[in-house]
Amino acid sequence: MESPLFKLCSSISYTKTFLQPISTVNSPKLYSIHKRKKLVCSAPSNSNSVCSEGGAFLSIGTHLIPHPNKVEKGGEDAFFISSYKGGVIAVADGVSGWAEREVNPALFSRELMAHASNLVEDEEVQYDPRTLIKKAHAATSSIGSATVIVAMLERNGTLKIANVGDCGLRVVRKGQIEFSTSPQEHYFDCPYQLSSEAVGQTYLDATVTTVELMEGDTVVMGSDGLFDNVFDREIVSVVGSYNNIADAAKALANLAYDHSQNSSFDSPYSQEARARDFDVPWWKKIMGMKLTGGKLDDITVIIGQVKGS
Amino acid sequence: MESPLFKLCSSISYTKTFLQPISTVNSPKLYSIHKRKKLVCSAPSNSNSVCSEGGAFLSIGTHLIPHPNKVEKGGEDAFFISSYKGGVIAVADGVSGWAEREVNPALFSRELMAHASNLVEDEEVQYDPRTLIKKAHAATSSIGSATVIVAMLERNGTLKIANVGDCGLRVVRKGQIEFSTSPQEHYFDCPYQLSSEAVGQTYLDATVTTVELMEGDTVVMGSDGLFDNVFDREIVSVVGSYNNIADAAKALANLAYDHSQNSSFDSPYSQEARARDFDVPWWKKIMGMKLTGGKLDDITVIIGQVKGS
Repeated sequence: MESPLFKLCSSISYTKTFLQPISTVNSPKLYSIHKRKKLVCSAPSNSNSVCSEGGAFLSIGTHLIPHPNKVEKGGEDAFFISSYKGGVIAVADGVSGWAEREVNPALFSRELMAHASNLVEDEEVQYDPRTLIKKAHAATSSIGSATVIVAMLERNGTLKIANVGDCGLRVVRKGQIEFSTSPQEHYFDCPYQLSSEAVGQTYLDATVTTVELMEGDTVVMGSDGLFDNVFDREIVSVVGSYNNIADAAKALANLAYDHSQNSSFDSPYSQEARARDFDVPWWKKIMGMKLTGGKLDDITVIIGQVKGS
Repeated sequence: MESPLFKLCSSISYTKTFLQPISTVNSPKLYSIHKRKKLVCSAPSNSNSVCSEGGAFLSIGTHLIPHPNKVEKGGEDAFFISSYKGGVIAVADGVSGWAEREVNPALFSRELMAHASNLVEDEEVQYDPRTLIKKAHAATSSIGSATVIVAMLERNGTLKIANVGDCGLRVVRKGQIEFSTSPQEHYFDCPYQLSSEAVGQTYLDATVTTVELMEGDTVVMGSDGLFDNVFDREIVSVVGSYNNIADAAKALANLAYDHSQNSSFDSPYSQEARARDFDVPWWKKIMGMKLTGGKLDDITVIIGQVKGS
């Protein structure tokens, strides 16, 4: 049997790494690695002891598909993964409205994730996701704003989550959704967001939750590009259809992408829009028509499978 | 300004009490108090120090409406509330299928809640909701089964939740759902359940979560009779419309009751049924008809408002 360490390191390849999306839906390599560390156990001082600990850890697969109009720039989502302790996963989604002010919306989310990645083992962070958001936000100097979610797995199986905005996380256990985060928003399609400006939210606005995980649980984290286009029951179905989590992440991202481009698909996003009274004009309603379709967006999927608990 | 203790005790009147539903929708008094303690601070030994602690606590209002066909027997839901530490709230929903075997489905849920109420300060429980479920289940000798949810608030604002089945809990903050439990089921309309029989679930099957609460947050706990008939957005709306939580609990229960009796209301239950392919026959679909309506059921609502954190 493989050791937990080997499984972890072999599944995510590199750790404590800021991953910047650079490529498109068709490429299996979706990120470049800015700060490469060969293996988690070559990381400084306390990493060896961390690695030799028993207990729960995440085996992680990822897939990112940029918005079709933003492929060349890699989109505005950013994420990082780390094998520190039981494993850390995080997604930030740059708020696209900044493009109207001649600001690249990707800069803030990428810098935020870069700082979060660098700070994940920081003593002052104390392996607390809200504190990590606080310190990463304070360190970010780019203009812009982003939604963000961070999840940290303790070796005892406790997954600690801090969430600002409408990125999300699901836990799938025995073929059903066991846990789900709730999106935060000011109004429809305007999520809570960390910002370079004083009007934005802070770590104090984060929803802070924990969920006790069991071996075999699957954690699905994503930007709203996933959850606006894919129903929870579809997430459960896809997760149950793949043994390989990297394949499952790719399949989920592709499903979200397909739905996002399908104007007749009655997506979670279109259902929510109708529930909020955004719909087609009344005369179209009389003809039996309704607002449908997916939502074009950057799509980030991180899947973590709980092992060794 | 009233002291935190006074607010708590004045809002729930009696604490550490097993509440058995005895009356109907039209009555403002919905339960009899079996084991009366005058005030929380007259409770044994350590209660005074608990009461004099600062920090977060719940101000609680409740309302229970039995299934219209079960009014005389009081329905099959049971619940308890306690002011121990930051406050404890719990609901159990007796599985009605036992009536077919000549077993009163209310006995198991009521006994389970009675034991849970008596055990809430037990040292071995260690103020852990899953352990409380474990010990209350072990102590229950009635034949039957029930879904159950228990939530315990720590003085530091951490709400600890254990849930088996399809009772539920929402946290409402600043006009939106901040946290939601997910129901567990074997298949549509067959929830996970604690049982007198070996085939049932145990505390090990509970979903165990925590959420960090803030002063002003509203916790809404209920049996599936609430969540099958009332949408989350309606819960948010009702909670925001009442200053008095007892009135809010009554209004939510009444809304659920009204929806449950409305055959044309497209309830969460009917939407879920259609999503699972339970629908009207194809020839009715062609005529534009679809499965609608609420779900007749016992309806329990407990609302806790976070104070003093």
